[in-house]
Amino acid sequence: MNYPMIRYILSQVLRLEAALMLLPCVFSLLFQEMEGLYYVAVAVVCLMVSIALGSSKPKNFEVYNKDGFVAVALAWLIISIFGAIPFVLTGEIPNYIDALFEIVSGFTTTGASILFNVEALSHTSLFWRSFSHWIGGMGVLVFLLILIPVKTGSRMNLMKAESPGPSVSKFVPRVRENARILYMIYFGLTLVELILLLLSKMNWFDAICISVGTAGTGGFGVLNSSCGDYTSLQQWIITVFMIAFGVNFSFYYLILCKKAKVAVKMQEVRGYFLIILTAIGLLVWNNRGIIPELGNNIRIAAFQVGSIITTTGFSTADFNQWPELSKMILLMLMLIGACAGSTGGGMKVSRIILMVKSVRKEVQSIAHPRSVKKIKMDGQVVEEEVLRTLNVFIITYLIIFGISLLLISFDEFTLETNFSAVAATLNNIGPGLGLVGPTSNYMFFSPISKFVLIIDMLAGRLELFPILLLMLPSTWKSK
Amino acid sequence: MNYPMIRYILSQVLRLEAALMLLPCVFSLLFQEMEGLYYVAVAVVCLMVSIALGSSKPKNFEVYNKDGFVAVALAWLIISIFGAIPFVLTGEIPNYIDALFEIVSGFTTTGASILFNVEALSHTSLFWRSFSHWIGGMGVLVFLLILIPVKTGSRMNLMKAESPGPSVSKFVPRVRENARILYMIYFGLTLVELILLLLSKMNWFDAICISVGTAGTGGFGVLNSSCGDYTSLQQWIITVFMIAFGVNFSFYYLILCKKAKVAVKMQEVRGYFLIILTAIGLLVWNNRGIIPELGNNIRIAAFQVGSIITTTGFSTADFNQWPELSKMILLMLMLIGACAGSTGGGMKVSRIILMVKSVRKEVQSIAHPRSVKKIKMDGQVVEEEVLRTLNVFIITYLIIFGISLLLISFDEFTLETNFSAVAATLNNIGPGLGLVGPTSNYMFFSPISKFVLIIDMLAGRLELFPILLLMLPSTWKSK
Repeated sequence: MNYPMIRYILSQVLRLEAALMLLPCVFSLLFQEMEGLYYVAVAVVCLMVSIALGSSKPKNFEVYNKDGFVAVALAWLIISIFGAIPFVLTGEIPNYIDALFEIVSGFTTTGASILFNVEALSHTSLFWRSFSHWIGGMGVLVFLLILIPVKTGSRMNLMKAESPGPSVSKFVPRVRENARILYMIYFGLTLVELILLLLSKMNWFDAICISVGTAGTGGFGVLNSSCGDYTSLQQWIITVFMIAFGVNFSFYYLILCKKAKVAVKMQEVRGYFLIILTAIGLLVWNNRGIIPELGNNIRIAAFQVGSIITTTGFSTADFNQWPELSKMILLMLMLIGACAGSTGGGMKVSRIILMVKSVRKEVQSIAHPRSVKKIKMDGQVVEEEVLRTLNVFIITYLIIFGISLLLISFDEFTLETNFSAVAATLNNIGPGLGLVGPTSNYMFFSPISKFVLIIDMLAGRLELFPILLLMLPSTWKSK
Repeated sequence: MNYPMIRYILSQVLRLEAALMLLPCVFSLLFQEMEGLYYVAVAVVCLMVSIALGSSKPKNFEVYNKDGFVAVALAWLIISIFGAIPFVLTGEIPNYIDALFEIVSGFTTTGASILFNVEALSHTSLFWRSFSHWIGGMGVLVFLLILIPVKTGSRMNLMKAESPGPSVSKFVPRVRENARILYMIYFGLTLVELILLLLSKMNWFDAICISVGTAGTGGFGVLNSSCGDYTSLQQWIITVFMIAFGVNFSFYYLILCKKAKVAVKMQEVRGYFLIILTAIGLLVWNNRGIIPELGNNIRIAAFQVGSIITTTGFSTADFNQWPELSKMILLMLMLIGACAGSTGGGMKVSRIILMVKSVRKEVQSIAHPRSVKKIKMDGQVVEEEVLRTLNVFIITYLIIFGISLLLISFDEFTLETNFSAVAATLNNIGPGLGLVGPTSNYMFFSPISKFVLIIDMLAGRLELFPILLLMLPSTWKSK
């Protein structure tokens, strides 16, 4: 491994975090809160550690495949470790493991909280929580790629390890250029949502926090009712933007390049909207008894579907009280997740489509053994290696899911609570069902379970392998 | 497709069923019950249909790959359709869909029941229920392979479609000879269990039914308490034989060939016992509060672990009342299942081992991209095609699981009930948790859900693809 380069990357990441931590301080000044001082202090510590790490420039700026994975995993660990400190210093989350849970939940855009009363937090910390979604949504390293000098192939290795979903390939040739475009789309959409929310007369602080939280498909709110107290119009705006941030960003990229015709034919995007509409339809039908007014029923169903499938995790209703079928539909949406190449988590719609296609192909190949049909996606043949990686991903996902489920079962909560807690963290959603439902939180779990769920959130956000790689002893053996 | 040959196979299957249906009549005579008359009547109908189907011998005795799958799927459907009729005629299960559920549950060795009071059944029907496990355990067609004339390659195609687990390969060269040996081991082990149960002073009718039910890893009991009222010694005998029938039959085959050293090194068998011992240990530890006496605690834990991992489904305790961790462990054992090449169901231990190995290899290949390690099992390299098929199997399993879960959720039972009902039928176990726990049954479900669960039982027993193939329109198109 190229240790000097990894150290250099970590140094840059910490410097970036130090800079980002000054943003909450702006809110300290505006709201005249003392908490900002602690953020400044931690920012200074980050900077000092950054300088210590980056004292010697690496001779070789190459990032190999493995280095990319290790650098990304370590970068996410280190920003979480430092990002949690302000919560402890301000006394708002006195227990460090809880603070770490909260900030990992933020950076990984999960939105699972251990707080009972978020309204008791300072504006400074509320903003830091929500803003961590925005930072984590597009990826810390993708942002760094715009700034730091690495070779093109190396950029690719970093981006591969950090970006959500199986299809970075489209962006291969000019990684730096594309990272910039992605961030522009990301920033632009966030800004549009912010403006619309302000026009709908939401108070400006809420509007900022909700916008960055939607953009990262995070889900931390600033009110105890999450989004339940906002007006119908505001809820609809949030719904539309949650769904928009779950769309594969290639879609917007193609539209920007004036290739709208190609964009609307993207199978993943079509599948994504098909699932959303079906789920809303089923929920509206099944909830007709408990939400009699049709307009309300549709709005509430659309909000929850948008929130869960994009793995955002805002809520406007306590779906824990819904009929079992409705809960099951939400649980399935949790597992499916958003599109690849979006800020959303989960298994990703493209993986689900490929799964269905491989099963159909397998059955057909039994029926007609001599026909050698290839699996296609958007008109292009999907290579065997992509399918193999997909399969290993699913299997890894299942194994991590199973082990996590077993470990947190030691806390003796119900199957519904445990299953949805793992689903909600591994898929970076936030609220689950049962004890971890939308009106409740993760405070109840033992420290060991919280640690397991922290690992799940990181593994989910980084598409499993970088975190596994850190745990493998042979990673650290030099050859 | 070779339709004449498929018709011929179905004709033979029905003839076999007609003969097997006369066995329960022996119990009618012994217990002087009238129910036997209905069994004779249905046997006659089977025979007539068999003669009608088999009127013309096929010119070509070849069974192609696809034909094998279709023949097996249809054979299982047809024996179930006829096998359910006696229950309706005797009035013991008046509703046909319930009767079909019960007999499919029997043939697929699931053991899920819709009956509240099995003790009200005639001895004739009780034996038919239990005996259906024995028939289905080793496979109807495997038995036929000993009798009917098909070409060697064709036998292979039939056996591949019917036998549980991914590894028929070991038996390739002499299918007919091997089918005979398998049935000998099967019959021998059943006989030993029967003798031991008789020596332990179990009444002879119970001993017969329990022995055939254990052998097929079925789970239908003859008492409402399942096995809860038997003595400790009898429960231990059943435990040992449940676990024995979950072992890969290659293990016994190797021992018969005096290759015990190779046998004890089989990774799957080792993994299987490791999982069993770990699960028993965890359960004993976790249940220490509710079952204070250690001897009882161990016996009850061992029985339930043996029953669930081998997908038998007998019970001596209402594990629905156990702590959540214990329930979770049982749920995981449900999904893991027994060894390939045994009469048990589930995903199979060998698949789990291969899954873990592929994940480890994937992570290693990121760490050391240039090393090209192959996955090995029992010292032999596992071919890419086997791994690919394994992956597609897992994915198919997940999709069927998900769709079934969604469909039965319309009945509005809890997640625990629905999840474990699908797990218990798709893995051919029998009792699940919640409403379908060991002291309850599947009566509550709507006819549509029962139909879904029937399909799941068949799909689970036949390793998914034969049943899927029947549903694919292109299977029925002639080229």
